[in-house]
This record gives sequence, structure tokens and C-alpha cells, in this order.
Amino acid sequence: MDFLNYPQPLADLIAGLSRLPGIGPKTAGRLAFYLLQQPQIAESLADAIQNALTNIRECSVCCNYTDQDPCSICSSDKRDSSLLCIVEQPRDVASLEKTREFKGRYHVLHGVISPLEGIGPEQLTVQQLLKRLDGVQEVIMAMNPTVEGEATAMYLSKILKPMGIKVTRIAHGLPVGGDLEYADEVTIARALEGRRQL
Amino acid sequence: MDFLNYPQPLADLIAGLSRLPGIGPKTAGRLAFYLLQQPQIAESLADAIQNALTNIRECSVCCNYTDQDPCSICSSDKRDSSLLCIVEQPRDVASLEKTREFKGRYHVLHGVISPLEGIGPEQLTVQQLLKRLDGVQEVIMAMNPTVEGEATAMYLSKILKPMGIKVTRIAHGLPVGGDLEYADEVTIARALEGRRQL
Repeated sequence: MDFLNYPQPLADLIAGLSRLPGIGPKTAGRLAFYLLQQPQIAESLADAIQNALTNIRECSVCCNYTDQDPCSICSSDKRDSSLLCIVEQPRDVASLEKTREFKGRYHVLHGVISPLEGIGPEQLTVQQLLKRLDGVQEVIMAMNPTVEGEATAMYLSKILKPMGIKVTRIAHGLPVGGDLEYADEVTIARALEGRRQL
Repeated sequence: MDFLNYPQPLADLIAGLSRLPGIGPKTAGRLAFYLLQQPQIAESLADAIQNALTNIRECSVCCNYTDQDPCSICSSDKRDSSLLCIVEQPRDVASLEKTREFKGRYHVLHGVISPLEGIGPEQLTVQQLLKRLDGVQEVIMAMNPTVEGEATAMYLSKILKPMGIKVTRIAHGLPVGGDLEYADEVTIARALEGRRQL
């Protein structure tokens, strides 16, 4: 209704922008006018979207986003192929890589098991995971500590353990710099549960 | 630095998105992954940007964004051509049109005079304005109540008044639903100054 007075291509652009997460019609309008005022930025953004759609695909091994197949991590011989870290989304790989601590390889599930949303193991990349377990000694479950993340970790662990693979879960507790006063009960309970000897 | 681990097309997409106003690298990353997960939305957004760049131009009369020249307002015979409302940006036309109160025509300056940013009358659409004053009886200055907006209104008014045109300024005062307690001093001073007899 707000777009009534805009010419159609502009209304379409606002509608397209407001389909992005966290961008409402008002912000979309502001962005659309900005793009029209800055045609070079607009042109390069449209190109970048097309280019990403054309050239980014899922790595056939780890299912992470890549522009070469297999991806740079899967094809690197500096990575420990006996250690596999399973994450929900491609962006989780980037978060883990930023730490520069992990030297193994990754597997991206592209979601978590969520019966409410009709997502079962078949919708995830579990088949690809089962195909690449040769020589893997430890699998780290790095799903988010949500109900669905925990359920997915449990499900995979029940498949992997009988195969003689060590299955671990990333630690949950107080974030570094966090404060007991502001932490929720579940986090504190997890921090107590996971306490270590000094 | 944060994009180090992303394949190039994805890093380019994040960089392109983070050039938008109000979108930082973190939000840009979230949007980029969303676009990759929703290729149809991404495709239609890229098309909408291209389409808007190709088909939206400035109306040769009022300089508003349009897909037909002259624009629908300039070519409508239901509009009062003796009344002209001058605004800073195309989005201001949309804001005024939403009220459904104004029956005249518009002129979009595409900015305000701002010596600090090197923007003088030559960078605005003042020439186009001067060409279309035939038959115009009243010009409403609807620039924003900023220093630059006021200066631009004063500048134009000094040109238009000697031509025998009535020049008016939109009222400034308390917004409807606003509260004296929370209004700034300048707004209250303007509201007092512009008081009307009941």
C-alpha cells in the first residue's frame, strides 16, 4: 500500500529488498532510493548477487559453500582428516576458522533435525557424512546448544558411536568475559556440569 | 579480514551488501548467506536492481524518479499546475502523496545547498525549476527544517519572489501526537512563532 505512488520498477525493488531478513518496508525504501542515487554501487551489488549465485555451490565432500570443488579446506593436505567437526551452517565454519585453533576438517549439515518444521535427516547432508567416515577417529558435534541442535547431535552420535568413532560435543558454559549475574540458569547449570579440575 | 575464509564470490557479495547504508559487515554476512540459501529471492532481487537501474530515470519536468517521461503526476490533468511544491528528494514526494491532501505538482531538487559538501544551486535541479514557472502562482518550500534546508528555501525564495510568485514554507511545530515535554527548544520556539488564532 505504501508503494502505491512509486513507479513499478521502484516498487519491485523495494519489495525485493524487504524480502531480506530484518529489513522492513521502510528500510527497504531507504535502501532502494540509495541504490538509485548510487548506480555504481547498485550495479556492482546486482553483479555480486548474480556472480555468487552462479559460482558458489556446495562442496561435494563437506557441503560448505565454495567456488571450487572440493573446497579449499577439503583439498588442503595440511588439515587433519582424522578429525571432523560437524556444524549446522556454512557461516559456522567461518566462525570456527576465525579462531585458527581447529586443524581438522568440517561437515556442514545445512540445518538441524526439526520435526516441527518437517526437517528430518534426509533433508540434511547426513548421507554425504556417512560416505566420508573412512579414517575419521573423532567427530566433534558443533551444533548450536538449542533443542534441535542437541537432538541432532544425539541422533548422529547414535549412528557414529557403534562405528567405533569417538564422538565429542563442544563445551557449553559461561562465555569468556561473561558474568554469572547475567547468565541464564541453563547456561550456569551446563557450566557446573562441565567443570574441570584446575 | 573477516572474509578471509570465504570463497571470493561470497566475499564480494558480503562486501557489496555492506556498502548499503546502515548495513555493517555482520549483517551483510547474514544477508549473503540468506541469499545463497534462497536463490529465488536472490535472483529476483538482482533482477529488480537491474530493472530499476534500466527503467527508472528522472522526469524531465519535475525530476522525480519515474518509469515514463513525463511522470504520472506531471502528465496528469487532475493536478493544479499553478501550485508547485519543492522537495529535496524523490522519497519526499511519496511522503507528501501519502497524505492525499496535496493536489498541485512537485519539483525534486535532488539535494540541498550545502557549501560544506560543495553542493551549490548548479548541482541541484534549479535550472529545470526556473524553466517551468509559467502559470505558477504559489511555490511551497517543503525542504526539511535543517540549516541547509532553510538556506535552500531562502535562496529560492529570493529568486522567485521578484517574479511575482507567492512563496510559502510548510509549517514547523509539534508533531501530531507529540508531547511538549519531549520536544526540543527549537521545535517549541517554532511552534510558538507559528501559532494561529482559534
